[in-house]
Amino acid sequence: ELVVLGLGVVRRLVGRVGLFPAPSLFLHQIAKEVAKLLEMKAQLGGDEGKHKFVLKTPKGTRDYSPKQMAIRERVFNAIITCFKRHGAEVIDTPVFELKETLTGKYGEDSKLIYDLKDQGGELLSLRYDLTVPFARYLAMNKITNIKRYHIAKVYRRDNPAMTRGRYREFYQCDFDIAGQFDPMIPDAECLKIVHEILSDLQLGDFLIKVNDRRILDGMFAVCGVPDSKFRTICSSVDKLDKMPWEEVRSEMVGEKGLSPEAADHIGEYVQLHGGLDLIEQLLQDPKLSQNKLAKEGLGDMKLLFEYLTLFGITGKISFDLSLARGLDYYTGVIFEAVLLQPENDHVEEPVSVGSVAGGGRYDGLVGMFDPKGRKVPCVGVSIGIERIFSILEQRVEASEEKIRTTETQVLVASAQKKLLEERLKLISELWNAGIKAEVLYKKNPKLLNQLQYCEDTGIPLVAIVGEQELKDGVVKLRVVATREEVNVRRESLVEEIRMRTSRP
Amino acid sequence: ELVVLGLGVVRRLVGRVGLFPAPSLFLHQIAKEVAKLLEMKAQLGGDEGKHKFVLKTPKGTRDYSPKQMAIRERVFNAIITCFKRHGAEVIDTPVFELKETLTGKYGEDSKLIYDLKDQGGELLSLRYDLTVPFARYLAMNKITNIKRYHIAKVYRRDNPAMTRGRYREFYQCDFDIAGQFDPMIPDAECLKIVHEILSDLQLGDFLIKVNDRRILDGMFAVCGVPDSKFRTICSSVDKLDKMPWEEVRSEMVGEKGLSPEAADHIGEYVQLHGGLDLIEQLLQDPKLSQNKLAKEGLGDMKLLFEYLTLFGITGKISFDLSLARGLDYYTGVIFEAVLLQPENDHVEEPVSVGSVAGGGRYDGLVGMFDPKGRKVPCVGVSIGIERIFSILEQRVEASEEKIRTTETQVLVASAQKKLLEERLKLISELWNAGIKAEVLYKKNPKLLNQLQYCEDTGIPLVAIVGEQELKDGVVKLRVVATREEVNVRRESLVEEIRMRTSRP
Repeated sequence: ELVVLGLGVVRRLVGRVGLFPAPSLFLHQIAKEVAKLLEMKAQLGGDEGKHKFVLKTPKGTRDYSPKQMAIRERVFNAIITCFKRHGAEVIDTPVFELKETLTGKYGEDSKLIYDLKDQGGELLSLRYDLTVPFARYLAMNKITNIKRYHIAKVYRRDNPAMTRGRYREFYQCDFDIAGQFDPMIPDAECLKIVHEILSDLQLGDFLIKVNDRRILDGMFAVCGVPDSKFRTICSSVDKLDKMPWEEVRSEMVGEKGLSPEAADHIGEYVQLHGGLDLIEQLLQDPKLSQNKLAKEGLGDMKLLFEYLTLFGITGKISFDLSLARGLDYYTGVIFEAVLLQPENDHVEEPVSVGSVAGGGRYDGLVGMFDPKGRKVPCVGVSIGIERIFSILEQRVEASEEKIRTTETQVLVASAQKKLLEERLKLISELWNAGIKAEVLYKKNPKLLNQLQYCEDTGIPLVAIVGEQELKDGVVKLRVVATREEVNVRRESLVEEIRMRTSRP
Repeated sequence: ELVVLGLGVVRRLVGRVGLFPAPSLFLHQIAKEVAKLLEMKAQLGGDEGKHKFVLKTPKGTRDYSPKQMAIRERVFNAIITCFKRHGAEVIDTPVFELKETLTGKYGEDSKLIYDLKDQGGELLSLRYDLTVPFARYLAMNKITNIKRYHIAKVYRRDNPAMTRGRYREFYQCDFDIAGQFDPMIPDAECLKIVHEILSDLQLGDFLIKVNDRRILDGMFAVCGVPDSKFRTICSSVDKLDKMPWEEVRSEMVGEKGLSPEAADHIGEYVQLHGGLDLIEQLLQDPKLSQNKLAKEGLGDMKLLFEYLTLFGITGKISFDLSLARGLDYYTGVIFEAVLLQPENDHVEEPVSVGSVAGGGRYDGLVGMFDPKGRKVPCVGVSIGIERIFSILEQRVEASEEKIRTTETQVLVASAQKKLLEERLKLISELWNAGIKAEVLYKKNPKLLNQLQYCEDTGIPLVAIVGEQELKDGVVKLRVVATREEVNVRRESLVEEIRMRTSRP
């Protein structure tokens, strides 16, 4: 619906008239439009000729095969079991939100949001995380008090590093507590949850780093960072897990114009990590202890550590002043769990994994959605599933563990020809009784092929119908592993299969 | 980046120059562009002043509350249990596909596909169903043999009718069998699955209509429909469930230029529905029996009914010549399940539900993705969850059944003040032992509030710690329903809670 004008035509047109105050700007804009249109045309290609398509999933995404799904379900089970153990309800939200719902929530990362094409109607974007939709849900339904989990895919137009478990479409498993409560009790529970899940999954040793945005801000203040630079200096600190201090320092001083003295002062603080002792030390720090925010943050950190001591998990918690976290919306405690020794004993290429869980307190986010700005304090944790998958997948691969991808208890088979009808009758009985059963979709399959199918897929039993068995009112039940065969009366078959396939 | 020109300016400009062969068309196009831009500007509003956003989910979508999730999980459980009973593996694919993957698969419905904005890189679209991604998955991985299910959301820019369970984002629960097998055995299993699921869910009486694309095409041929009109006349027939025959006929004759004789001939056939008897009758039909496609279709339909008889489900199956189904890719058997009497005895506004499941055979789809066109025959079924949800939600609403949204077994409480630490210590023990437990996030909650919380959320037990109990090494366990209280020794508490909350 655009007008395509040759640039020459436009030049002549405008040249003759001389109407515009800045014709060169006008021409430039037209030229840009024309170039865009030509590019579109080129992309569409000639309509004639066969269209060659690429057979792939979009960049940064993947399919899950049945085997991968089996591993995925194991991980989900561990996580959901934990979330339920802590009394969480579950909700779900749409995969896309109104674009404006996501606007202004993610700081610099907003450029990674996937937008939908404007096809008329509302402007939409794919969700970037589950936290902002959760806050929108609370504000929209005026909920001031909930403990919920949400497991769903989120979308980021990041540079994927799929071998390290970084995708553009990936799962987040979020647990959040919303409501006005006494300080640090829900925050401590979130850390307990991370501890439980990472222990359950047996991913090897891990460490949960904890900090507080208020301590960071107080630290910046006493180091002489101007208020206006808090956010951007915080972003620099966030890079400390990927870059050495010297590089971060030169970013602060060079790019961001911080004074070398302030940077060096920060440099001293961000080296610090420890436990209750460090908190006590900082509470005595002549400068920090004079800063209101820092003092509040340190007081709460102390309380948090007391609760974590009651939970018996301080052994894996480190109060770490270098932890900053990227997202804009955090207001209090922040934390991140990292695996210390990726389990790669039997793997050739070690999986390099970063953080596998993170979260924190965001007391202002719901208020951003409420017309009257009413706040609902929230704290939550997000488990990063994809990296955990990568590790477990490699581990399964290495161990040659055989993973079953179905739960079929019995294959209904026949040794002779012309028994398809009898097989279908029997399997129908089994299905109706709730038995998981399969049959080969062949009129006259060979017994050997039927047994081979059981070997391949791990089906433990075969129910064999034959002329003689039909006459005798029995079915021959064969145990695949031992090759043992017994005749079972037809009316006892269901019970027999149940007994032989019930888990210990 | 567009040039906004006042229409007057353009008119003057063009008027003075008189350069274009059709200036009025040119002006019209410019005017349209200008109008669009002004509209955009109006939508954006003044940049000054607070941005007013709308607090809602995108059109045609919804959140799921914890209560709705509880209903949703019940339905999923029934469906997944059935799919697993039939030996299916599970896969997952990304929510979006390369745009070209979806191109040319859905006929007229393609206009309903959601495209993503071109932000550089590949052109992407949200999946429209799970069948095309499945076919892409098979071709991409050169899989010629699989039985899988896939439960995921799909996206259609349709006009939503949410009260009737029609959304733009909705779940499909698909079960498909791919592979070269003897005729109609997998097809029959798909129908058995629909029968099992609809019976399990107790949605009231239902009917599964069955037809075959080959019978339809043969019917069109013998009625004198030109080959080129098969597809579009098939679309008209597909409307018979929403429109009376007279309207469909006038569409065929008026809009689509079919001869009245051919239309009337079709009109006679599409009234027919029945069972094996109808199949036999049509096999004797002097015209149909001469048509190769129809004969093949009818032969297979007869075989299908024989298998369905063995499965004992023909009572709810109707061979119906008016069933056409919209999607382009079907090549053989097609079917659709409808609820006959929506269960609305106790509901004021009856839910009007259409089809709740559908499917068919699509032997050509995988070949469309294979570079060498190698075919993988497939047949599958898709369960339409949203309409089933609508019914069950209304039923729960009407019955005042109380649905628990958590599984918490016990609340850790205290009757006196200053026992937060003891509560945290105890709950930590319970969590570590796998007990689902909650605690109120207050330093000194009132006992009454703690008991009320249990009433509200359905928690059956309260473990009360107090000074005396701590001294005696016991915990007071209270049964919420009966108010019975017993002292339990601390080391037996886990066992006691397990025993009292195990399902019968």
